[in-house]
Amino acid sequence: MKIIETIEKVRREVQNAKSKGQTVGFVPTMGYLHEGHLSLIDEARKKHDIVVVSIFVNPLQFGPNEDLDRYPRDIERDERLANGAGADLLFYPSVDEMYPVEMPMTIHVNKGVDVLCGASRPGHFDGVATVVMKLFQIVQPTEAFFGQKDAQQVAIIMNMVSAFNIPVDIVICQTIREEDGLAKSSRNVYLSDGERNEASFLYRTLLYGKELIENGERIPQLVLDKMNTKLQSGSGKLDYLSILRYPSLDRPEELNGTIILAIAYQYKNARLIDNLILEI
Amino acid sequence: MKIIETIEKVRREVQNAKSKGQTVGFVPTMGYLHEGHLSLIDEARKKHDIVVVSIFVNPLQFGPNEDLDRYPRDIERDERLANGAGADLLFYPSVDEMYPVEMPMTIHVNKGVDVLCGASRPGHFDGVATVVMKLFQIVQPTEAFFGQKDAQQVAIIMNMVSAFNIPVDIVICQTIREEDGLAKSSRNVYLSDGERNEASFLYRTLLYGKELIENGERIPQLVLDKMNTKLQSGSGKLDYLSILRYPSLDRPEELNGTIILAIAYQYKNARLIDNLILEI
Repeated sequence: MKIIETIEKVRREVQNAKSKGQTVGFVPTMGYLHEGHLSLIDEARKKHDIVVVSIFVNPLQFGPNEDLDRYPRDIERDERLANGAGADLLFYPSVDEMYPVEMPMTIHVNKGVDVLCGASRPGHFDGVATVVMKLFQIVQPTEAFFGQKDAQQVAIIMNMVSAFNIPVDIVICQTIREEDGLAKSSRNVYLSDGERNEASFLYRTLLYGKELIENGERIPQLVLDKMNTKLQSGSGKLDYLSILRYPSLDRPEELNGTIILAIAYQYKNARLIDNLILEI
Repeated sequence: MKIIETIEKVRREVQNAKSKGQTVGFVPTMGYLHEGHLSLIDEARKKHDIVVVSIFVNPLQFGPNEDLDRYPRDIERDERLANGAGADLLFYPSVDEMYPVEMPMTIHVNKGVDVLCGASRPGHFDGVATVVMKLFQIVQPTEAFFGQKDAQQVAIIMNMVSAFNIPVDIVICQTIREEDGLAKSSRNVYLSDGERNEASFLYRTLLYGKELIENGERIPQLVLDKMNTKLQSGSGKLDYLSILRYPSLDRPEELNGTIILAIAYQYKNARLIDNLILEI
């Protein structure tokens, strides 16, 4: 695996591969890799000749009160893990390489940002869209791989690809779960034993909502009310429980087409998110 | 010359050419072609295997009080002219093809929009940047050709290419002029005989400013004051006279590097713009 720090060099490597007819799978990350990321690299490895992983903690998507400086980093471990999972190129640019001057323009997201995690993070998805647009232009991959766990981010990136006609295909990979169904996350280690034992009820609640819909319930509020009742038993605090169209993130009056059931739940030292996407 | 109305088809044609190692020159226009556009097509023809011209009157760059519906159109004449100038593909999409749904996100330009023509057209360059980003993603040209006459537009597009690392090179083509120096424009026909005889003083004033700087003047305001005096003799009304860094469009305290002298001048039925770009 080559470690590359400049835009010019990663572009040259990828173009070189593409000129030989090779396909390129791309996994953009902020580093501190966990099993979710590794499953994306694995999926890209299965489908493409060349796998590019990027590690860049993007300042643009952190708000003024968010802890950019304390975001966890461990590049040596990440190198080992990315290499082990089958990456060919690790693109690891500095902030100066990505933003040599203040951005004279950014992507401004108008739709799908006032719901789910976006409601409490104004400007966050502008920063995400802007850096992903840059990374797509730099790497020019055949396909890019994202985890369904970050469903709002994936929706906005799918909408961006479609809105700007970006020549890349987006692949959504399944959320990786513990045996009891809890979605894997770096944050799970911050759960107390009691919280950890309880936490899989979030996934079970999503499955319950899915079952209600599969059994014919078509009114979003009625599904939400029943799911909410289940969530009352938890020892943490519900941040949101939502049913939206996917990937438009519009609120449905009636349930049909592709929809997402999404939960964010706050424990003492960890905020957990999870979701299911359903075709009705 | 092929006339193509869909994104899918123009992309297929261009990718087919690129897969054979051919280079692609791109001239984006809003149609109603004049000699300026034809000189861009001519330049692209000299340098590239395939020349793509787009004609799309972009609703996103017209303000609510601007006359999108009355913007001049003559597609039959444009087809003839583009073909005569050597275009291979004329991409002529409908508004529905370019914007099948309302854009869920757009490019928002933060810098270089409160000066020159941008000062009186809020949001205009957001619309320009957004459609040019789409066109670049659709066509994926090797080089794109723009006329220096629209210097602010070119600056913002150059800044966009740099900010988002878009893999396209921008070529700025010289302003085409009448024998007396007046910049060619579709709008010149709206000038009265007296105005037409006078109008080349705009270009002469730019040359005068250039001479002052070449003779060693480095204080922008002193150059502007002397140019302003020259412009007093005109029968129309000065809209703006500016000296800015190029392409950043920052105001310089002292003249060095690359700068632009730019004029907009209002006659009774025509607003004329012109500029010079200088290396100091």
